[in-house]
Amino acid sequence: MIIVLKPIATRQDADEIIAQIASLGLKPLYMPGTERTVLGAIGDERVLAGLHLESHPLVERITPILTPYKLVSREMHPADTIVMVGGVPVGGKHFTVIAGPCAVESREQMLASAQAVKDAGAHCLRGGAYKPRSSPYSFQGLGVKGLHILHDASEKTGLPSATEVLEAADVGTVERWADAFQVGARNMQNFRLLTRLGQSQKPVILKRGMAATVEDLLLAAEYIIAEGNPNVILCERGIRTFETATRNTLDLNAIPYIKQHSHLPVVVDPSHGTGVREFVAPMAKAAVACGADGLLIEVHNNPKVALSDGKQSLYPDQFARLMRELRPFVEAAGRTL
Amino acid sequence: MIIVLKPIATRQDADEIIAQIASLGLKPLYMPGTERTVLGAIGDERVLAGLHLESHPLVERITPILTPYKLVSREMHPADTIVMVGGVPVGGKHFTVIAGPCAVESREQMLASAQAVKDAGAHCLRGGAYKPRSSPYSFQGLGVKGLHILHDASEKTGLPSATEVLEAADVGTVERWADAFQVGARNMQNFRLLTRLGQSQKPVILKRGMAATVEDLLLAAEYIIAEGNPNVILCERGIRTFETATRNTLDLNAIPYIKQHSHLPVVVDPSHGTGVREFVAPMAKAAVACGADGLLIEVHNNPKVALSDGKQSLYPDQFARLMRELRPFVEAAGRTL
Amino acid sequence: MIIVLKPIATRQDADEIIAQIASLGLKPLYMPGTERTVLGAIGDERVLAGLHLESHPLVERITPILTPYKLVSREMHPADTIVMVGGVPVGGKHFTVIAGPCAVESREQMLASAQAVKDAGAHCLRGGAYKPRSSPYSFQGLGVKGLHILHDASEKTGLPSATEVLEAADVGTVERWADAFQVGARNMQNFRLLTRLGQSQKPVILKRGMAATVEDLLLAAEYIIAEGNPNVILCERGIRTFETATRNTLDLNAIPYIKQHSHLPVVVDPSHGTGVREFVAPMAKAAVACGADGLLIEVHNNPKVALSDGKQSLYPDQFARLMRELRPFVEAAGRTL
Amino acid sequence: MIIVLKPIATRQDADEIIAQIASLGLKPLYMPGTERTVLGAIGDERVLAGLHLESHPLVERITPILTPYKLVSREMHPADTIVMVGGVPVGGKHFTVIAGPCAVESREQMLASAQAVKDAGAHCLRGGAYKPRSSPYSFQGLGVKGLHILHDASEKTGLPSATEVLEAADVGTVERWADAFQVGARNMQNFRLLTRLGQSQKPVILKRGMAATVEDLLLAAEYIIAEGNPNVILCERGIRTFETATRNTLDLNAIPYIKQHSHLPVVVDPSHGTGVREFVAPMAKAAVACGADGLLIEVHNNPKVALSDGKQSLYPDQFARLMRELRPFVEAAGRTL
Repeated sequence: MIIVLKPIATRQDADEIIAQIASLGLKPLYMPGTERTVLGAIGDERVLAGLHLESHPLVERITPILTPYKLVSREMHPADTIVMVGGVPVGGKHFTVIAGPCAVESREQMLASAQAVKDAGAHCLRGGAYKPRSSPYSFQGLGVKGLHILHDASEKTGLPSATEVLEAADVGTVERWADAFQVGARNMQNFRLLTRLGQSQKPVILKRGMAATVEDLLLAAEYIIAEGNPNVILCERGIRTFETATRNTLDLNAIPYIKQHSHLPVVVDPSHGTGVREFVAPMAKAAVACGADGLLIEVHNNPKVALSDGKQSLYPDQFARLMRELRPFVEAAGRTL
Repeated sequence: MIIVLKPIATRQDADEIIAQIASLGLKPLYMPGTERTVLGAIGDERVLAGLHLESHPLVERITPILTPYKLVSREMHPADTIVMVGGVPVGGKHFTVIAGPCAVESREQMLASAQAVKDAGAHCLRGGAYKPRSSPYSFQGLGVKGLHILHDASEKTGLPSATEVLEAADVGTVERWADAFQVGARNMQNFRLLTRLGQSQKPVILKRGMAATVEDLLLAAEYIIAEGNPNVILCERGIRTFETATRNTLDLNAIPYIKQHSHLPVVVDPSHGTGVREFVAPMAKAAVACGADGLLIEVHNNPKVALSDGKQSLYPDQFARLMRELRPFVEAAGRTL
Repeated sequence: MIIVLKPIATRQDADEIIAQIASLGLKPLYMPGTERTVLGAIGDERVLAGLHLESHPLVERITPILTPYKLVSREMHPADTIVMVGGVPVGGKHFTVIAGPCAVESREQMLASAQAVKDAGAHCLRGGAYKPRSSPYSFQGLGVKGLHILHDASEKTGLPSATEVLEAADVGTVERWADAFQVGARNMQNFRLLTRLGQSQKPVILKRGMAATVEDLLLAAEYIIAEGNPNVILCERGIRTFETATRNTLDLNAIPYIKQHSHLPVVVDPSHGTGVREFVAPMAKAAVACGADGLLIEVHNNPKVALSDGKQSLYPDQFARLMRELRPFVEAAGRTL
Repeated sequence: MIIVLKPIATRQDADEIIAQIASLGLKPLYMPGTERTVLGAIGDERVLAGLHLESHPLVERITPILTPYKLVSREMHPADTIVMVGGVPVGGKHFTVIAGPCAVESREQMLASAQAVKDAGAHCLRGGAYKPRSSPYSFQGLGVKGLHILHDASEKTGLPSATEVLEAADVGTVERWADAFQVGARNMQNFRLLTRLGQSQKPVILKRGMAATVEDLLLAAEYIIAEGNPNVILCERGIRTFETATRNTLDLNAIPYIKQHSHLPVVVDPSHGTGVREFVAPMAKAAVACGADGLLIEVHNNPKVALSDGKQSLYPDQFARLMRELRPFVEAAGRTL
């Protein structure tokens, strides 16, 4: 850790901090400069958190040398992690497509949508039973009944299922009925939920928050793994920027960054990432090309009447075409679909 | 509501949508244009949500005429709302200062900090028992024990207390020990929590999310009020932008905007809004000047050793000076401190 | 155009505006609602700009139905435009790679870099003679001497050249020595420069500004074409967001959006879009996959000593590998490299 | 400067860089760590720019200790700078209001607007002769004729004038007719223009770019001062964020930040900063309260017919009221109006 002192700090101030660093077992360094004194701390700087040096009135700023996360870091774990959802691998050579409607609306809608994505070649099924909605006047999901329907659709098609969990209290119920948890963008920093999910062994698809940096996302994954559940799949789904032409700005730069810094698999959600049906296919292909391990795609048997996110849901035939068009890109990326 | 059709839409397509609008009791309008046909719907357009016109494949876009919120709207409720926290009014002519440490760390720290803010003239006390932290390796708060300490500090000083609640399951406990709930930025769209808070009658200080527009904030408040709790205090605490000189970008534009569109009181948190101790006082004054109803300020009896947010916490003497310096600004704004 | 009046507007106020609309030859529409009156104007609403209705004290807001640009719009010109740079097509079936160093630093450096990109299969050469730099203490480019060197490198390799032009006064000089102009992100709204470039017939590679929406970019292109130069190539190069893991956030969503709304070719600059050498290749492939017409890539014969942007410049062998790896993606996209 | 090496860097790699640092007269430091080696360079690190260490393939990242600007820095020049516009001071104890229409539209409009702001107590006059507009179909300003009108209005009212200059070629003309240059947000990084303005001695009001950090703004000011013109007035006018409720997000945090880091005066433009007439007054007061040295405000004798920015222009009586209401805030801030 590098600690830059304010110009008014004296040699004595520096010595005091140096002593604190040494007392925690790190090797301190003293670097007097022309305009400022800089201190260093060599060793596992994470133990310095207890000193709260960033609050010290004579410290101008501190610069960590190491990443604030450990367990998700590629340095600690160089090989790619493969997470199994039901029997389906996410990560490694396989490219995995998880598809289905935004929300479970009815048995008919869910079964029809599930069959459509199965026929087109999807590997897993998605469908929301609990829906977080910006307006209290919007459809909020079918709840437990939705979980049962999703489970039936999963059994009928043989596709493992993933569904959103909204709070710690629901983890047990969701765990019973689905093969993977999904944590939505609004909950990426719901630390109670993350901690509770860390006590399960079922995989967690962790979506990046709208205002979250990639480092925030990796720290959120660290919460889950630190609690004991190593089965985390990261998901890039777009961030909020000044651009309003699309619902979000899909930050595909995050894919090579995550691949460089972490061993966890990462999938892309081009449905939320664009918010526009016509842009889902090109951005899905781009996700393949830049190294993503899979896709999360909204498909509805009849988007015209979808109760949520209809504007970004693919029609079954559009999804089938996308699956065909993806194949040469997946092969160009050296993977199998 | 204004519905712009795609250029390929025919007269028959338009008629179909017009019939749907009419069937819901609204008056439809047909406006054929040179390049596109535009439809209108006159009446309470919120009932149109069920049509999901935004998902219709022939609809280019829809533009609502009315705001998506009702109960928080100034049009529905022209007079300013005054919310009582314990016996302290927020809103109206009084300018209210809520101060205290970021987290309850110990009995000594909390009591000392509480006495300091009381002596300086604060009206309410803040202190976090549950702390949401980006890293699993940071201090997570004292939990229920922290609530008890906060309650004692409140009793000893006679200042009503506000504290953060993290999830629906904790609402009952927090309600017993504190005078107001605080909903943090990360939870602004935790709709389960909002709904549960709507079933209480204690005031809720609702902080704007880092990626939330002011309209998102008003919709989140609508959740609480729609459920039955009218005692909502909005809080601007900074949004996430590209600027890294400060921890967040305090969006004071939001204050006159909220005052124009809503009857709810709004306070400003310059501690999180800047993240820098030296900038808290100038931004607190700016908040007064642009029409805020109060402030939420972090004060710690010894920020140098604070377990969280020490960098932005005021020393007791800095806070006392701020309270003195605020007075002429509060008077210039036609209010009392 | 849709004009929403404030609640206080009377029937007489509405009639006044209706008369103004009619006087300009558009068909006005009157839509009294429950809470607000809405007016419409049918016809080419761009003539309404002269009324400045957005400034009218009784107008709450206006919503245009048509795009503010015309000449760049795909509606006006459905077929894809192919722009020729020297003899090289940009747009259509061909996928075009423009490569070279950020700045012309010396004859040796430029010739070596040019030969390297030629050998690897690039179609055009880039190299900056005028460099806009954030700090006055950074290298500012060789100026006219740099143009001469670039021209020599272009002649020696047979690759057409593109180079940045900083202001209207330089257009004539740059036109003499290079095959295409490049307008940098900081100059995207330098309207004097755009107007002057509109008087040339040489192609213009117009880079999106860091805070520019895609619509702003299309309007900037409209400036050039409106003045008489139809040879505009758009370039996505990343926008500024809160994410600091990469230099910019490459907004690939912009590619399908531009393809839907405009007939102009669009290329991607993954070098500036990421700012990190290791991320250039994956994002270049993503650009191919989502429908871009080409790439702008920084390659330096020795990035370790580059005077600018060395961190994001490819080594010659990295670029050669990228060209090989691009081929299957280009073929998957149904194009030729 | 702190240089963090990649984990793969060897002792020999470090020694090579250490030798380079020493060869430039700085004192190098070697700090081997558990996971990475860190190097330091003590002395005026700005001379290290020539090494381009950020491009070195074995360097993970570099962290400067000193600011990249010097001349604008408060460390180099602790006392506040007061810049004279005509005979009017900007900075120091006086609070300065610069007001007038967005654009010079006609002699009548300019004279009427100028008289109105003079009567209300403004200290300087603003009015644009050259208008940069996003659309080629919008009013582009009267050019030189506008400068003549502005000059007449300045003479008639005795108020010094400020007007925007768009490119280096116009500096001489603008200098002849106006008392201060204004550099618009879109031109903040037009380095040719900045350099040319550095050769004048007339004051420059430098507006922050929409995507510019405060540090970028200070570096742009450094360009002007480095060239020989110390008379720079900074201007905060809002940045582009995801919030669309207001035209821009006025970043008042920038004011205390600039005051801490620079000796230059800084004014605020609440007209562009909000884009909404009703929000100009509250944000003007907030600017006073947080320490700004003045305001730049758009006032039009008849905003309803303004050719640009009418929506955010004050009516003369609104401006007169604002001037009256500002006084107690200015006094609370310990200044005079």
